[in-house]
Amino acid sequence: MKSEQSLLKPYSKESFDKAIKEYREAIGDENVFVNADQIEPYLKTYLPIDETLYAPSGALSVTSVEQIQAVLKICNKYKIPVWPISTGRNFGYGAALPAIGGQLLLDLRKMNRIINIDEELGTALVEPGVTYQQLYDHLQDNNIPLNLCVPGPGPLVGPVGQALIRGEGYTAYAEQVTSICGLEVIMADGKVLRTGLGGIETSSARTWQCNKYGYGPYLDGIFTQSNFGVVSKMGLWLMPKPAHCEVFSVVYPEFSDLDKVVNLGRNLKINDVVRSPILLGPTAVGMALGGIPRSVIKKPGEGHLSLEDIKKFSRENKQPAVSATSALHGTKEQIAANFKYIEDAIAGTGGVLIHGQYLEQALPPTLVKHFNHAFNGIPDLQEFALLNWKGGGGLIWFAPICPAVGSEATKQITLMEALSEEFKFDFIDAFFLNGRSMVHLFNLFYDRNNAEETQRAYAFYDKAQRVFAEAGYGVYRSNPAFMKSTATVYGEAQSHVNKKIKQALDPNFIISPGMSGITP
Amino acid sequence: MKSEQSLLKPYSKESFDKAIKEYREAIGDENVFVNADQIEPYLKTYLPIDETLYAPSGALSVTSVEQIQAVLKICNKYKIPVWPISTGRNFGYGAALPAIGGQLLLDLRKMNRIINIDEELGTALVEPGVTYQQLYDHLQDNNIPLNLCVPGPGPLVGPVGQALIRGEGYTAYAEQVTSICGLEVIMADGKVLRTGLGGIETSSARTWQCNKYGYGPYLDGIFTQSNFGVVSKMGLWLMPKPAHCEVFSVVYPEFSDLDKVVNLGRNLKINDVVRSPILLGPTAVGMALGGIPRSVIKKPGEGHLSLEDIKKFSRENKQPAVSATSALHGTKEQIAANFKYIEDAIAGTGGVLIHGQYLEQALPPTLVKHFNHAFNGIPDLQEFALLNWKGGGGLIWFAPICPAVGSEATKQITLMEALSEEFKFDFIDAFFLNGRSMVHLFNLFYDRNNAEETQRAYAFYDKAQRVFAEAGYGVYRSNPAFMKSTATVYGEAQSHVNKKIKQALDPNFIISPGMSGITP
Repeated sequence: MKSEQSLLKPYSKESFDKAIKEYREAIGDENVFVNADQIEPYLKTYLPIDETLYAPSGALSVTSVEQIQAVLKICNKYKIPVWPISTGRNFGYGAALPAIGGQLLLDLRKMNRIINIDEELGTALVEPGVTYQQLYDHLQDNNIPLNLCVPGPGPLVGPVGQALIRGEGYTAYAEQVTSICGLEVIMADGKVLRTGLGGIETSSARTWQCNKYGYGPYLDGIFTQSNFGVVSKMGLWLMPKPAHCEVFSVVYPEFSDLDKVVNLGRNLKINDVVRSPILLGPTAVGMALGGIPRSVIKKPGEGHLSLEDIKKFSRENKQPAVSATSALHGTKEQIAANFKYIEDAIAGTGGVLIHGQYLEQALPPTLVKHFNHAFNGIPDLQEFALLNWKGGGGLIWFAPICPAVGSEATKQITLMEALSEEFKFDFIDAFFLNGRSMVHLFNLFYDRNNAEETQRAYAFYDKAQRVFAEAGYGVYRSNPAFMKSTATVYGEAQSHVNKKIKQALDPNFIISPGMSGITP
Repeated sequence: MKSEQSLLKPYSKESFDKAIKEYREAIGDENVFVNADQIEPYLKTYLPIDETLYAPSGALSVTSVEQIQAVLKICNKYKIPVWPISTGRNFGYGAALPAIGGQLLLDLRKMNRIINIDEELGTALVEPGVTYQQLYDHLQDNNIPLNLCVPGPGPLVGPVGQALIRGEGYTAYAEQVTSICGLEVIMADGKVLRTGLGGIETSSARTWQCNKYGYGPYLDGIFTQSNFGVVSKMGLWLMPKPAHCEVFSVVYPEFSDLDKVVNLGRNLKINDVVRSPILLGPTAVGMALGGIPRSVIKKPGEGHLSLEDIKKFSRENKQPAVSATSALHGTKEQIAANFKYIEDAIAGTGGVLIHGQYLEQALPPTLVKHFNHAFNGIPDLQEFALLNWKGGGGLIWFAPICPAVGSEATKQITLMEALSEEFKFDFIDAFFLNGRSMVHLFNLFYDRNNAEETQRAYAFYDKAQRVFAEAGYGVYRSNPAFMKSTATVYGEAQSHVNKKIKQALDPNFIISPGMSGITP
């Protein structure tokens, strides 16, 4: 467990002091933070490793494209790197900490203008600091019939960070990266790149946000999970408010029905019956999300909560063992036709479709309320209940990608159960099904104040990643402590190409060295 | 009108001869073509300019990744560039001709293996030479219930070329680029890059094709409309065969109703009522596509067919002036619910919804048959009827992107009509609506054997591109004679970034120099 700080070109205290002086001149004294107490708010984190190894050396708060350019110029001069953050949350994946310590955080939070909303086309143009709550309030206040695709930690995070890190939300535009339409990126050399139709000098927000591709190589993708530039504006597609939204759950009695649930979920998604992602998982996940105390299943002091415990609990309480939860959107007739499709698909399989007033019989009421928010694009804080499940403040998401096929899910569950048993961590495990693939999300809860448990959490992740890689699987996102090893899983050729592009666009590696394992 | 051949690093006759000798050793005598009669089949083209300026200096036909690597090694040694083609059609956009003359065509047609079909997930892994017809036959012969998204020139072209050039098809996966899931790319240095989950050494086709993104920068996009590598395999998503497919048309009496048609189309697409693209246009396009002789509207020798002629014809013949044509897919109940949505949406607007047996009252029977094929993923040759409209063998598509808003379409039509009048070309004009944007497709038909008309066609395109750029619009694709000028429309910053990436990945510019205007 050693820091990768040695990978940064060493800069002297003298250079650093000179640079800080220039940053102060460029963006104002009050926006340059180097004292410990000033940086402290950025350090709330969830790394199962000595976090000082990933400590930034300060933070710069900027408010404009010109300030970003000025900062990058000084960075190039002194070879001091910056790690841009938008809202800086990145819950479960390392918060605001850089992948290599010693960088300055480049805080874009104050760049929070909603520049344009195109009500007819259903598009927005926003800055990195805009939060889902802010955007939601704006749509409400102006009576604009567009829905957001809000992720779990809804109100606090923002669409730019969420889309660029390739996070998920609950409505039809679940994979937020697919809703990106046009980026403004400040390159390391200070050039302002507008992708797609934004490159046309005379283009409007309407043309820029109507089409992703424009002409020539489609560039937007290389600025996601990446360090090739600083994104200063993002076009985002918003879903027209549907006439109706109905949350539903298909429940099955046995955990071995997971196979059927996954195949059903894929069927519904790739046949476009359900537009939102489908949440699949055992009972306990719903309980954790719904804020039901852990002690209901497992008494404190009796060890970790195993998959066997969960199966036993649902058997004894006549609760469904696995379920698929999502929502239908559309007119009454469309929703009725799609419910019929679901009923036909589950006929004879032992599954039961539950919706409307009966939902509270299958799910905790807090969760029903939350899903009615989430699938309707209304941000709420319910999912922070997860952090109370076990207490201790530590949460890492181990999130391998799984093909949306029953047999593959079963294979991954078997691997995950063995890891949960070996390392004695609660089995709070779920799948977010997006069509042909799912994000398999293991909630690794640990007590940050317990050194042994923290080390064990690190060891879990480390081994889990290796075991899954041997079986052909990789995670979709990882935290700074594992970025390099995740990149290794994805092979030498990808690292080689990423590094070549990085060297071409940012020869001094002044933007986020270490992001996604891309290092000098 | 000068060639950009001067942009290639000059190679001597002696180098060329040496290189050819080495290519012969590497891939076999019978796969190296340098005589005029051997190259001739590649030269069928549609450039409104002296085509010898874009003539390749030969062609190399390869059958494996190893042969591509061997060829690129020799290219690097002698600084001789290759222009990869898959099926080499690129109808309406310059066929197989390179953007800068003097390159060797790298013909991948013989790499035509269907490597994997995943029936459950609805995915394919194919080589560049696979055609839609071949893939269609394979699905039929093996009773695999998956549908292709076939473009106009269906049988003859292939999904790899079509997706990489960002072409369109007729089913729900219209923008073929959005169906790419995983690429194998041979880089200029011979390295084999597998994008997404394909980078994991132990991954299977199932994991590779289930998820587009994997980890780190999402790279697939930069290999579309690009010259950063040679794509040797592509993952492709296929649509599950729907229970039913119903073609429909919404027709309006006046050409000024175009505004309503476009807004209706956007509504249907972004609310996910219609999954296929929606074809919008005036009567004459349907006639040209349907193989109705031009003389029905305009007698030969009476000049070009103007928009006024078309309006007059539909008025006099009580034909609808504009229509929106597409298809609904799904169960009977889903289709009924969606027809109700459409009926509600057009109520009181003057539009009429036509489907089923009544369709032939609105469209030529050949076209009804074609649409029943196209929206069901069945390749046919009907759209080649376009080439008989006027005769003379010349066709360029001028294809600006248009926001899917009535007022924008009307603005573009006004510009297009003025150009059609100024340059005296038939107004055969349509829109393919994909949601928030449309491809506006002007069919520029000209007589290749008439030098004056050919020059006029060039002048039309040249001015059209400038006029549209001044109004904030750009084309989504262009032919070799205009790649550089199109790139200029999209601005200096995009060209700068593209060139930086190109230099990093292919320092000798041996792969397709000039593609999308990316030149040394």
